[in-house]
Formats: sequence, C-alpha cells, structure tokens
Amino acid sequence: MAAYVQDVIMLVGDSLTQGGFVPHGFAQQLAHVYNRKLDVFNRGLSGYNTTWGLPVFEQVFAKQHEQQHVPKVRLLTIWYGANDACIPPSPQHVPLPEFSANLRTMIRSVTSPSSPHYSAITKIILITPPPVNTHQRGADLASRDPPRPLDREFETTHQYAEAVKIVGAQEGVPVIDLWTILYDACGRVEEKLSEYLYDGLHVNQKGYQVVFDEIIKTVSKHYPELHYDKLQNVFIGHADINFENLRESLQKRIAMPSPIPASK
Amino acid sequence: MAAYVQDVIMLVGDSLTQGGFVPHGFAQQLAHVYNRKLDVFNRGLSGYNTTWGLPVFEQVFAKQHEQQHVPKVRLLTIWYGANDACIPPSPQHVPLPEFSANLRTMIRSVTSPSSPHYSAITKIILITPPPVNTHQRGADLASRDPPRPLDREFETTHQYAEAVKIVGAQEGVPVIDLWTILYDACGRVEEKLSEYLYDGLHVNQKGYQVVFDEIIKTVSKHYPELHYDKLQNVFIGHADINFENLRESLQKRIAMPSPIPASK
Repeated sequence: MAAYVQDVIMLVGDSLTQGGFVPHGFAQQLAHVYNRKLDVFNRGLSGYNTTWGLPVFEQVFAKQHEQQHVPKVRLLTIWYGANDACIPPSPQHVPLPEFSANLRTMIRSVTSPSSPHYSAITKIILITPPPVNTHQRGADLASRDPPRPLDREFETTHQYAEAVKIVGAQEGVPVIDLWTILYDACGRVEEKLSEYLYDGLHVNQKGYQVVFDEIIKTVSKHYPELHYDKLQNVFIGHADINFENLRESLQKRIAMPSPIPASK
Repeated sequence: MAAYVQDVIMLVGDSLTQGGFVPHGFAQQLAHVYNRKLDVFNRGLSGYNTTWGLPVFEQVFAKQHEQQHVPKVRLLTIWYGANDACIPPSPQHVPLPEFSANLRTMIRSVTSPSSPHYSAITKIILITPPPVNTHQRGADLASRDPPRPLDREFETTHQYAEAVKIVGAQEGVPVIDLWTILYDACGRVEEKLSEYLYDGLHVNQKGYQVVFDEIIKTVSKHYPELHYDKLQNVFIGHADINFENLRESLQKRIAMPSPIPASK
C-alpha cells in the first residue's frame, strides 16, 4: 500500500485534461516541477461534460471524515466546457445555465464550510475551453468513416468560455481564460488556431505549454505559497542528510515549510 | 482531500528514478499509458543510496493497518545502485554486501507475510544501474568549478548491477538488466554509451525509452494481468454511460476487471 507522503495537485476535466500526461503536456510538466513535493492526480475523462463530471467529482474529492490517510488537494484545476458546448442533440450537450450551475456546484463543494467535501486549504483554478477551429474540426470529422457532421460551433464554445469567467468572478476563483489567450495569440483568426490545436478541438504541445505557463503564472499571482520554488522536498536533499542521526534526518516533512491552516 | 480512487505504480530509487517525469521519461510514459487506471507515484530521490533509501521506503510504503483509504501498490520498481557504487570515501558509497542486504530488506518488507508492510498484490521489478561512461562522467566532473575527480568506476558499477541480478534470482523478483542491455546496445564499447547517457551517469531520452519498453516487456511476461491493455478505466468511457441510471453508471470501478486476491 502507498502511504500518504505527499499532498497533491488534482486535475479535473475532460479529454483536454486526460491528455495532460503526454510529453510536454501540462500534467507532465506539473509532475516534473513538483517532483518530491506534490503528486499530480490526473482525473480528466475524455468526452465527459460537467453533468457527468459532477458525480465523479464527488468520488475523487474525499469527504472530510475520510481524511486521515488521504493526501490533501493543495491545488485543483477545473477545465470543462469543450464537450458541454456540443451542439444538440449530442448527448454531450449541457445547456449553458446548467453548465454554470455544475461548475458552481463543484467549486462550492470544496469552498463551502457546510459541504461534506469542504477543504479550506484547496486552491482552485478554473480554465476556459480553448476556441474551436471549426475548419480543422470539420475536416477531421468529415474524414472519418462514416463521415460525421460538425459537432461544435465557434461562437457557442465562446459562450461557454465566457460562462466560466462569470462563475469564477462570482465565486472568487481565478480563471485562466485560455479561449481568449489562444484566440488573441492567433490574431483572432480562427484558421490560425491550428498552431495550438492538433484537430481543431484538442491542444497540441504548444497549446499545453500555454496552459502550463498560465497555471504557474496564476499560482504565482494568487497562490504564491504554492509555487514549486516555495515548497521544500518532502525528503531531505542527500547533501543535507545528518549521518549522526540518520533516521530522524530522513523523516518525511510537509512540503509547505511554513505553518498552514489545518483543514477543518 | 483526494479520495482513494486509483491504485498506483510506485517508482523507488535515486536520481535515475527522480528524473522519470521528464518528457519521454519512464514515469511520464507510465502515467500516460496507465491514465484512468493507475496513478504513478515517483519516489525517486536524487543522490540517495539504499542505506538512505531504506528508512524512506518504510515511510512511502504503508503498513497494513493504514490501508483503508490508501491506494494499493500494484507495481513497484526498485532501481538503485548508481550511487551505492560510488568510490570510497564518498558518503554515498555502500559496500556491496550491504547493498545486496538493503535491496533484500526492501523486497522482503513487501513479500514477507510477517512484515508490517506485507502486500501480497504488489508486483516488484528490480532494475540494475546503467553502465557508467567514465570518459563522459570524468569530463563532466573535471569541467566543474572547482573540478572534481572521477567518483565512479566502470567495473564497480558492473558489480553492483550483478548483485541486483543475484538478489532478484534469490528472491524470485524479475530483473531488468539495464546495465547489460545498454552495454550490449553499444557493442560493449564504453565511449559509445553517450548514446544513452547524457552525462555518463544518467540516462537520456533514448535511455528512458529502453527503461519504459523493458518495464512493459517485463509486465507482459511476468505480470500480464497488470498490462495497461488488461485494465479497465476506473470511470466508464463516456460512450458507455447509461443515461437511464447515471449515478450508478458513473460509480468508480476497480481497474482490475477480474477478481484479485485481497491483501492480507
């Protein structure tokens, strides 16, 4: 059995999150820079929307009474919308008000003291879905056997991205507006999004680099105490081992060097 | 708090393991192919030898009585020797008999029914240290400020690799003989090891690819039930969700589809 040694960064979302462990993906990069400090749990689920993600969220985020041997979630990214924005009658479609409500439910299940999942020390970052390159996506779907019609619209996904921003502002949660960042980076020319999307829907290596960089920027600005440079290794560096007192020197430590408020 | 949702692959060792989350590293590749099935816990500690690794091992591998909310370690890699083989009086040096004994202690703490860490379902793989390219390593150390003398010898590390193989044979644990695989791949010409080592000591991307491929080969041969293709996603694929019974359909499952013996 694996003991509780390190706290974690939990990544929640759809295929954009699930793919994060590819080389240069945002999960890989987080796991690398937070090595020996925080583990990275990728809980991304390809094809999922927030309605399906909600019962999953309640299972991956432990209840307070289970906490004794369970790692604390220090950082939580919530990155949904790409599937919620599917065009009806796709079963993936979630109406915009329900999408916002689902995101709010996830956030409040962590932030609300009356929630069984309440965790005061968990810092949340919301990420908006990337813009859809309907030219690229349409060509991809048309090339399948049998060919499939376009399943997402450019402006619809934009509305879901805007909804994430509104929920973030209302709930006091920082938002990485990936939609706007990528669209601006392409000079607001939809076709040029192929620079950041490999199939019109999913980010490529360059897109994941933006996501990782923005997460670190957001951590630096809003949760500076969680920057990897501010954390210490759970097990001491080998050059600092005290050979006179080996066992004590090799005791695991908490990655946060300063006192932190305990989760209620 | 992060709930216990997935079991884990635990990677134990020194800097060769610690570096495993680089792009194309063996930890990154395992995390990617086992996504939604098993989490990867990288417990590699740069500079550590088995003597220092032993008290750490006892902390990262949970005791039986702690198991309720703790993920089970399904696969455990133990990859030591690169530092144990340092030339005395380096503090990293561990005499060969002690090195073998330490490895044996780690293995038996998992496999021995009388051990507090006993875990019948944990499958172990030993990995030998890679051969040292003393030309490359010597040049690297000589270029430092102040210059440092060569700290490892080619034949000494070979002896530590052989010791790992003996322990594996004695304990019935499969061994990836990375030392021999890499040396053979270079036509048994030490200088040519730079193809797999970036500094004469640590594997590069091509070296990590060998490690990953050998782990999957070893799993396929010795623990086929743990191959990622044999495991199911903990949360159901989105196309298989039963909309008539959403909550039940979205209940987490065990990644192993067939009954498994419970850990005592």
